[in-house]
Order: sequence, then C-alpha cells, then structure tokens
Amino acid sequence: MVHGGDIYGNAVKYDFSANINPLGMPLAAALAAREAVSQCGHYPDIRGEALREAIAEAEGVPGEWIMLGNGASELIYGIANGLRPGKALGTAPAFGEYERAVRGAGGEMWFWTLRKERDFILGEEILSQDFNGIELLFLCNPNNPTGSMMERDLLLALAELCERKKIWFCLDECFLPFAEREAEMTMKPFLKEFPHLVILRAFTKVYGMPGLRLGYGLSSNPELRHRVQNCLPPWNVSLPAQRAGVAALDEPDYLERTRRLLEEERKYLTDALLESGLADKVYPSQVNFLFFHSTEEEGGKVFKRLLSCGILIRDCGDYCGLGEGYYRIAVRTHEENLALVRALGWQSHGI
Amino acid sequence: MVHGGDIYGNAVKYDFSANINPLGMPLAAALAAREAVSQCGHYPDIRGEALREAIAEAEGVPGEWIMLGNGASELIYGIANGLRPGKALGTAPAFGEYERAVRGAGGEMWFWTLRKERDFILGEEILSQDFNGIELLFLCNPNNPTGSMMERDLLLALAELCERKKIWFCLDECFLPFAEREAEMTMKPFLKEFPHLVILRAFTKVYGMPGLRLGYGLSSNPELRHRVQNCLPPWNVSLPAQRAGVAALDEPDYLERTRRLLEEERKYLTDALLESGLADKVYPSQVNFLFFHSTEEEGGKVFKRLLSCGILIRDCGDYCGLGEGYYRIAVRTHEENLALVRALGWQSHGI
Repeated sequence: MVHGGDIYGNAVKYDFSANINPLGMPLAAALAAREAVSQCGHYPDIRGEALREAIAEAEGVPGEWIMLGNGASELIYGIANGLRPGKALGTAPAFGEYERAVRGAGGEMWFWTLRKERDFILGEEILSQDFNGIELLFLCNPNNPTGSMMERDLLLALAELCERKKIWFCLDECFLPFAEREAEMTMKPFLKEFPHLVILRAFTKVYGMPGLRLGYGLSSNPELRHRVQNCLPPWNVSLPAQRAGVAALDEPDYLERTRRLLEEERKYLTDALLESGLADKVYPSQVNFLFFHSTEEEGGKVFKRLLSCGILIRDCGDYCGLGEGYYRIAVRTHEENLALVRALGWQSHGI
Repeated sequence: MVHGGDIYGNAVKYDFSANINPLGMPLAAALAAREAVSQCGHYPDIRGEALREAIAEAEGVPGEWIMLGNGASELIYGIANGLRPGKALGTAPAFGEYERAVRGAGGEMWFWTLRKERDFILGEEILSQDFNGIELLFLCNPNNPTGSMMERDLLLALAELCERKKIWFCLDECFLPFAEREAEMTMKPFLKEFPHLVILRAFTKVYGMPGLRLGYGLSSNPELRHRVQNCLPPWNVSLPAQRAGVAALDEPDYLERTRRLLEEERKYLTDALLESGLADKVYPSQVNFLFFHSTEEEGGKVFKRLLSCGILIRDCGDYCGLGEGYYRIAVRTHEENLALVRALGWQSHGI
C-alpha cells in the first residue's frame, strides 16, 4: 500500500506528503523521548499508567476508556481483529488501512462512494441505506485525503443508527485537533451514550512524532475494549513514546499555536495553488493538509515535477474512489510553503 | 497476564524478573536511538530496509525472509491473526503470550505438559501423538521460564512432522543467542527445507532494549509471510528501534562478551542458590536466566522477601503447568547478583 511520508526511497528535501504538525514535535516531548532511551533497558509500563492519566485528563474521559496503541494504525488492526467484522463499510476515498485491516482479519470491505459533485462530503442519504450485514463502520472526520468535515448532526444520526443496528462505529478523529472547531465537532461527549462508538486519536500527527508511534482509542464499552485489547501485544507502546506523550500533553498552548499557523498558511497555499493555475479546485480544509485537483491531469505529472525539485507530495491517484489529477499536500511552515510555491515557478505571486 | 519486568507497580532497585542482557543496551545502539529521536518528525521507513539488510547479513538469510516486529511479541500476534489456527498446541509451562494471541485470534490453545520428573524437557514421545486438528505449534527453545533446551534431532523430527501434517511451526529462539551452542542448536539452517517453520528472534533480550521494542520473524515461505504481514500495521517499528537495531548488529563482540559473563555468573548464582539451602533444585541453563524450585513452598514467600529488599524476581506460580515454589531469576552483572545473594542473607558464601 502506498502512503505519504515515505522519504526513504526518494531524495527528499521537503516532505509535503505526510500530514504532520508543521511545528514538529514539542521540544519537551523530544527531550523526554531522548531521556527515556537511557531507560530502555527496562520494559515500558505494560499498562502505560502515566500516559493513560495524562490522556484521561486532557480528553476528559475516565482512564479505563483509553486503549493505547503503537500509532493509531495499530488500533485500526486491533479493532478489526478484535471485532472481526464479516462485512465492514468505509468511504471511498478514505485512509487505506481500514480496508487492509478488515481484510487481514478475514472480513470484506464495502465502500460508500463520496461524490465529487458534493466535494466528497458525506451526505445524509447514507442514513436511509439498510446497512445489510454491515458489522463495522469506519469513518474519518475530517476525512483523509479529502479534508472534508462531517457535521455533528449527521454523526449523531449515524451513531444512533449504529446503536440501533448493533454496528460497531469506529470514528477516526486523528486530524480533528487541528481544527478550530474541534470542540463542537468531536464525538467524544457522546461516547457514554453510544457504546458501539470508538474514537481514534493520534500523537503522530498532532504532536509531530510519527517516528515514535503513539495513538489511542476511546470507548466507554468494556466489551469492545476487552476484545480489542486482547488482540494487542503487551508492551505495544515503547518507553520513549510513552514519555514523549506525557510531555506533549503538558504543552498547553501548542495546539493553539499550531492552529494559528495553519489558518494563515492554508490561506497562503490555497491562494497560490489557485492563482498559479495549477489547481482548478482546492477543497475547503480546516486542518493541516489541502486536497486539490490539478489542471494537469496526466498521472503524476505534478508529483514528478515537484519530486525533481526534492519536494514530495501525495499523489492521490491510487485512492479507491479518486483518480488522476488529485493531490494532497501538507500545510507546512511558511518557509517550507514558500519553497513549494517557488518550486512550482510561481515567484510572481507576492513572495 | 503477569509478566516479568513490571518495575512500575513496585519499588524496585534490582530487576531480576526480566530476562534482559545484563550488559544492557550497546552504547552505540543507545546513541543511535537518541539521535533518531530528533528525526521522529518523519515516519519510520515502512519497509525497514536498512534494518532488514543488517539482520539479513547477521543471520545469513535473504532479506525478504524477515518480518519486522514491534518486539517479537507483536509477531506472535501477527502469526496468530494471520494463520488463524482453530486449534494450536504449546507446552505447559511456556511464555503466556502464545495462548493469549491464539485466543485473541479466535482459536483454542491446547497444552503438552512438560514433566517435572524430566526437568521439564520436551521428550520424544510427543512425536507419536496424532496432533489431531492442530494447525499451529508454538515451541520456545530454550523454553521460558524453565530454560530447558531441545536437541536439534527432536526439533528436526518435529519440523518434519509439521511439514507432513501441514501444521505451522512457530519456534521462538529469542533466548538462543545467549547460549554458547547457538550455532548447533538453531533451526535457521532448515528454514528453506521446512516452509511451515517460522523462527522468532528479539533484540529486546539479546541487546537489552525492551523499552524500544524490536523483534523479527524468519520464514522462507512467501504465503506465511504474506498472511502474517497483512495483519501487522504499517510503520510498526519505530525509527529509534530501527536505528538502534542496525547499530546493535554492528557490535561484533557484544554477544561473545555477554556469553562469557553469563557463564561465570550462572555458576555463581546456581551455587549460591543451592548452597544457601533456598533452592532444592536449580535447573540447568545455558542462557541468561535460572529457573529454580525453592525449599520455601508457601506461595510467593521468596518473592515477597526479596521485594521487601527492593529486588524483583519472577514468581512462576501462575504459569500453566507449574505451581507454588517455582521461580525464575535473570542472571545479571556480578554486582547485581551479589546484591541478590546478600539480600537472601548468604553473606557467608564466599562473597
């Protein structure tokens, strides 16, 4: 499976293909991880108590609702293996690991196609489907790679539907903390009301530490947690990741600073993409990446042009439900965004 | 499940409960991991190429035979989820995660009881069983927690039997590199001959880095590897673990120094346990831990006495197939071993 962030097979100076916080890892988290290396002669805390407490406080949920993962990606596999759906439903396009995990667990993946005409935003018509035989629903809000946001009313209606039909509902909110409106968009306040709901979150993206691997799942349902955790290996979260997680959550203004930067830079990059004539459409985004359709439709043309300048972006041509001409770029620091714009030869656009 | 190495719930000065190389992590590996933290704003190499090459060279196997894991424990789960045995067989006692992984994957675990009268050594009579319905065999050589070694003739006969009956054979060799006779005991040279065989190895124990999480599996069978790898999340090995692994394998005399230390200290601790009258039997060991039966049979008595001195050992009373009075201790540095012996009040024994 192709993913962003693969800087190893390419000569990459700027990585716009991975959706990581442009501020990078908080210094305190990096220092905590470095310090932790010297203690790696010990096993990590198998229960991750300190990290669990820190997350519980930050998220306002009881500590026992938290499942810790070696990245949120591990929890996708834990959920697929633990809940073992015969048939699961996701959107097309969406993060490809939902499908891979469901298939690995012996299930079938079905897709609900997000329509181009609707800017790939999930519509209410999904509510009138019969969900025949579906045992697990995977949604990502905002969606990756499109950045499209689902309104809470629709999510609430879906959560009710899942509860009624006894469908597990995995809602991936890994990108939501980048959004200004996180508090009014998250489904966290409804975890207790909907025991079939499990929410995924990641330090990877929000705290810029994909190399360390750290994510978590939230569920009020002891049966769900038990089933998922029984499929996770012990000591799945390394000691550096546990310590970095605790330190990151102790940086109260980090998210605020991130959001301010993103707001400015999203605007800058959106304008540059449109004004340059490279993109004929940049989809609305409230997070740390932009999804656009290029006027240059030959497969990978934009991708290759940028890579020849040492800039890696995500060619979305391989996503189920998309096709040639769709790209995703991370919103980075102004300096990096400048480099991207320059590489495209748009020096005239007010730089 | 109870495991050794849990220093978090206890006030522990010396940890003899985890079977880790007493020399600790090689300095070069620790430095590489620390250095890698500053690059954790990037994803780890999803294919782990540099680490894969280093392991391939060290183990003398093709790179594509290697499955990388977030600790060998993750591979146990990957094997259970990928091969999905209806019925698996292991020994009692053995490492408890085989059973947990098989059950998590929806299978049943059956046990072959290792007999006390035979020092818990697996005997040839297992070859005449009918293995009715068994789809996966888990063995650990040397076995954890007993330290008992299986001879290669028996392993070869078992591998042949598994091949004939189409039973997957997972052989956990995580402790084998501590043994002088590793080269003549390992089943590595027979991986090609036995496509149902998969061998597990770990950096955790051998290179003293359990906090970083790194292990691998070896199999010549593309179908097996495909099935297992499909159940593993992407980026499952962190960047610090990948870099530390490469650096550790570049320390050529590390294992040799470890083995020399262990040989002396095993003898010292064995004599001390016996001469003190605390143990009525110390089982033969070629590796980095000792398994013994205590004359003090009241559950956990020895354990509690030592813990009150800040020393954590592994009370093996909870292992399936064992009972009260069995303990496992790691062989540590002489200074630490001295502390253990002193804590037991054996100052008279030539210290």
